[in-house]
Amino acid sequence: MGDRVVIIGGTAAGSKAAATARRRNPDLDILVLQSGAEVSYSACGMPYYLSDEEHVPRKLLVARTPDQFARDGIDVRIRHKVEGVDPKKGTVEITNLESGKTWSESFDQLLIATGADPIEPPIPVADDAPPVVTLRSFKDMDRIRQMAGEYQRVVIVGGGYIGLEMADTFHALGKQIALAELAPRLLPNFEPSVAEIVKSHLEGHGVDLHLGTGVAELISNGVRLNSGEEIQADLVLMAVGLRPSTGLAQQAGVKLGATGAITTDAGMHTNVERIYAAGDCTEVHHFVSDQPIWLPLGDVANRQGRVAGENIAGGKAAFSGVLGTAIFKVFDLAVATTGLNESQAREAGFDPATCQITTMSRARYMPTCRNLELLMVGDKKSGRLLGCQAVGEDGADKAIDTIAAGLWGELTADDMAEIDLAYAPPYSPVMSPVQVAAEVLRKKLRS
Amino acid sequence: MGDRVVIIGGTAAGSKAAATARRRNPDLDILVLQSGAEVSYSACGMPYYLSDEEHVPRKLLVARTPDQFARDGIDVRIRHKVEGVDPKKGTVEITNLESGKTWSESFDQLLIATGADPIEPPIPVADDAPPVVTLRSFKDMDRIRQMAGEYQRVVIVGGGYIGLEMADTFHALGKQIALAELAPRLLPNFEPSVAEIVKSHLEGHGVDLHLGTGVAELISNGVRLNSGEEIQADLVLMAVGLRPSTGLAQQAGVKLGATGAITTDAGMHTNVERIYAAGDCTEVHHFVSDQPIWLPLGDVANRQGRVAGENIAGGKAAFSGVLGTAIFKVFDLAVATTGLNESQAREAGFDPATCQITTMSRARYMPTCRNLELLMVGDKKSGRLLGCQAVGEDGADKAIDTIAAGLWGELTADDMAEIDLAYAPPYSPVMSPVQVAAEVLRKKLRS
Repeated sequence: MGDRVVIIGGTAAGSKAAATARRRNPDLDILVLQSGAEVSYSACGMPYYLSDEEHVPRKLLVARTPDQFARDGIDVRIRHKVEGVDPKKGTVEITNLESGKTWSESFDQLLIATGADPIEPPIPVADDAPPVVTLRSFKDMDRIRQMAGEYQRVVIVGGGYIGLEMADTFHALGKQIALAELAPRLLPNFEPSVAEIVKSHLEGHGVDLHLGTGVAELISNGVRLNSGEEIQADLVLMAVGLRPSTGLAQQAGVKLGATGAITTDAGMHTNVERIYAAGDCTEVHHFVSDQPIWLPLGDVANRQGRVAGENIAGGKAAFSGVLGTAIFKVFDLAVATTGLNESQAREAGFDPATCQITTMSRARYMPTCRNLELLMVGDKKSGRLLGCQAVGEDGADKAIDTIAAGLWGELTADDMAEIDLAYAPPYSPVMSPVQVAAEVLRKKLRS
Repeated sequence: MGDRVVIIGGTAAGSKAAATARRRNPDLDILVLQSGAEVSYSACGMPYYLSDEEHVPRKLLVARTPDQFARDGIDVRIRHKVEGVDPKKGTVEITNLESGKTWSESFDQLLIATGADPIEPPIPVADDAPPVVTLRSFKDMDRIRQMAGEYQRVVIVGGGYIGLEMADTFHALGKQIALAELAPRLLPNFEPSVAEIVKSHLEGHGVDLHLGTGVAELISNGVRLNSGEEIQADLVLMAVGLRPSTGLAQQAGVKLGATGAITTDAGMHTNVERIYAAGDCTEVHHFVSDQPIWLPLGDVANRQGRVAGENIAGGKAAFSGVLGTAIFKVFDLAVATTGLNESQAREAGFDPATCQITTMSRARYMPTCRNLELLMVGDKKSGRLLGCQAVGEDGADKAIDTIAAGLWGELTADDMAEIDLAYAPPYSPVMSPVQVAAEVLRKKLRS
C-alpha cells in the first residue's frame, strides 16, 4: 500500500485532486471526507436545476457519485466531518454525522479543500419572519426546490453573482422579486457603466431594486431595510457573499494571506509540511497584477485540484495563476470580465487607460446579431493589454476568452487589434468586437 | 490639393484603404475605380441574402454607397474598368463601361485591390444545357435571385466554402441539391476526420454527394460527371475556386510570389515604386509557418486595406500576417480552422503531433450544450501550439478565436491548458473545450 492521502472536502478541488492522484499513482490510499451528502457536484449548476429541472435534472449536476469513486479505489465518505487536524502526529479527528461516532485517521499527506461558506449577517429575526435560505450546498438547493409552491414574493439580499443568477431563476419560476444590495451599485468589481446596463436589464424584467441599503431586520412577513422601508416577502434568499472556510487550516497552523484565504505556493503546498490546500479556501496569484487575490470560482478550484492531485502523487505540477476571469448570466445578458479594471490596474502600478465601445456580435445583417458592450483596459507605458469587461446578449463569452488568451501571452493592444480571428457573417462582423475595441484602445494609449 | 491616389477595386481592401487614407489625410485626392456596380459590399453575406432576404435585406450587405463615400470626399466610380497601368508615367487607362468612353488618369500613388476571380473550367456546353452561375459579385447574386422560381434541381460544382455555404442556401430555399467535387474528399485544407463529419452532415440533409469526380460536360438538362454519371439539373453553380486577379499588376511590372498572387512587404508596398497592393490579389505572410500563403478572405482584405490606407496617407503601418484562420457554416455545423494542420506543420519544419477530442460546448447539463470536435496540433520539440480545427453545432468559433489569440502569443500547449477562461454553466463546461484539448495535447507532445 502506498501513502495515505486524506482529502478534506469533496466538491470541486477535493474530488478533482482525488481523481488526478489516483490516475497518476494507483498505489495511493485515498480517503475523501465530505461533511455534506454529495460529492463532486456543480454548485454553479444549482440555479439552472431550480429554474428548469425538466431539462437540467438533479443527477446531471453530480459529476461522480461515491460509488463511482469507489470503483476507482477512492474511499469517499459523505456526512463525515473533520473536527481537527494534528499536523505533528499526522492525524485528523473525524465525526460520522449520521452515527455520531468519532475517531482519528492518520495521513502521510493531507489536502485541505474546505471551500467557502456563505456569510450570514447577524440580523434580528422575528418569530413569524419568512423562511431564510442560502444557496451553497445541495441541501440548500433541495430546500428551495421543496418550497417551490409555498412562496410568491422573494427578497434577495445581495447583488453579486449568486443573487443575480437567482433573480433570473425566480423570474423563470414566475415569482415576484425584490433585491437589496448594501453597496450603492451592483457589481462593484465591474465598471459603473457595466453595472448600469445590468441594473436597467433587471428593472426591465420587473425586479424591484434597492441599492445602497442592506436588510436591517427580518420582520413578520417580510424584511425591513436599513432605509426603514419594509418589503413583504414569503422567502428571503441570503446571498451577501462568501468567506473562505479556514478554521481547520488555522487550527493546524496553516498560514493565511492578506485576503484571509490560505496561502500556498504554485504547487499547492501550504507552509506546513505534508499539508496541501486547494479550491475556494485558498488565495491565488493574479497573473496580471502579480498580487494574490481570493477568487472562489469552480473552474479555478478544479484546476488547483488537478495540480494538488499531481503533486500529492509525486508530480511537479504548478498552478500558473488566474486572470480574474468570470462570467455570469442574468436574464438575457452575459456579464463577463478578465484581467484588471482601471482602478485595479492603477493599484497594481500600471498607467491605465480604458476604452468603451458598443459593437456588434456578428455581421450586422445577420438576424442573430446583437449589441455587445466592451470596456478594454491597457497600459500607456508598455501598450500592454490589461483587462476587459463585456456585457451583452451575444458574444461576451467569446470576446472574454479571446482576450484572456491574449492576456496570457502578454499581448499589447496593437497585437490584439491584428490577431487573425475567424470571420464569417454568422459568427462575427468582419472586424470582430475584440479587434474593434483594441483598435480604439491602441489609439487611446498613444494619446 | 494633396497627392492623387488611385485605387483599383472598391470591395473590401480598396474601400477600407480609401476610408482609412481619407481619415488620416483630408488633403488627399482619392479616386476609386470599380468595374462592378457596387462598392464596399459583403461578398460573404450573399448566401444569407439569397436564403433569407426577409431578414437579410440586400441593402444591408452594402457597408457604404458611392454617395456616402462622396460625402467623405472620396470619388468612387462604379462600372469603370482599368485597362492598363503605366508605372513610369504614373497613369491608368480607364474605360467607362456604361458610355464606352476611354481616358487616362494620373496618380501619385496607386493601390491595386483587384481581388480574385472565380475559376471557370473550360468544359463543353450543350445548347440546351442548364444555366451556369458563379457567386462573386452582386450581379451574380441578383441573377441567382431572379431565377429563384425557375429551378428546382441544382448541381453545385466544387466543395469549398462557397459550394458548401450555397448548399445550405439552396436547401433553405427547398431546392434539390447534388454536389460534385474533383478531390477525393471535401475540404482538403482540413483533416480527413473533419471532412468526414461535414460529409455525413451534408448527406443527413439530403445532399447528393459525388466525390472524386468533376464535371466533364454540361449536357441537355444536366451535367455529365467525369465518372460518366449524368445528373439532371435546372441550374449549375460553379464554385471550383478562385484565382488572384493579377493581370493589371503583371502588366505594370509588379512581382508575383510563388502562390501566384502579388508579393508585398508588410506595409503593402509592391516591388514597383508608388504601387501598393492589398486584398485577395495579394499573398500574405503566415505567422506560424513563416511562409507566404494565398488566403482570399474578407477580413484579411479588410485589415490589409487599413494598412495600405494608413501608408498611402503617410503612415508607417504594418500588416502582421495571418494565422490562416477561417470559418464557415454549413447547415447546423460551424467548421473552423486556425494555424497549421499536421501536414502543413511538417512542411514548415516542425515536429508535429495532433490530438483529436470530442468534448462539450457548455456544461453538459445545460440544454444548449452540443458536442464539439477539436483537433489540436503542437510541436514536440518546443511544446508550442501550432494550430487547431473545430467542428460542431456550438462553440467552434469561440474555441478557434481563443486559440488564435494563443497562437499570436506563441503559447505552448501547457500555457493553453492553464489559461483562466470564463466559466459558468450557460457558457462553458468547467474545463473549456480548449483546455480539454490542450491537456490531451500537452501529454501527447511529451510522449
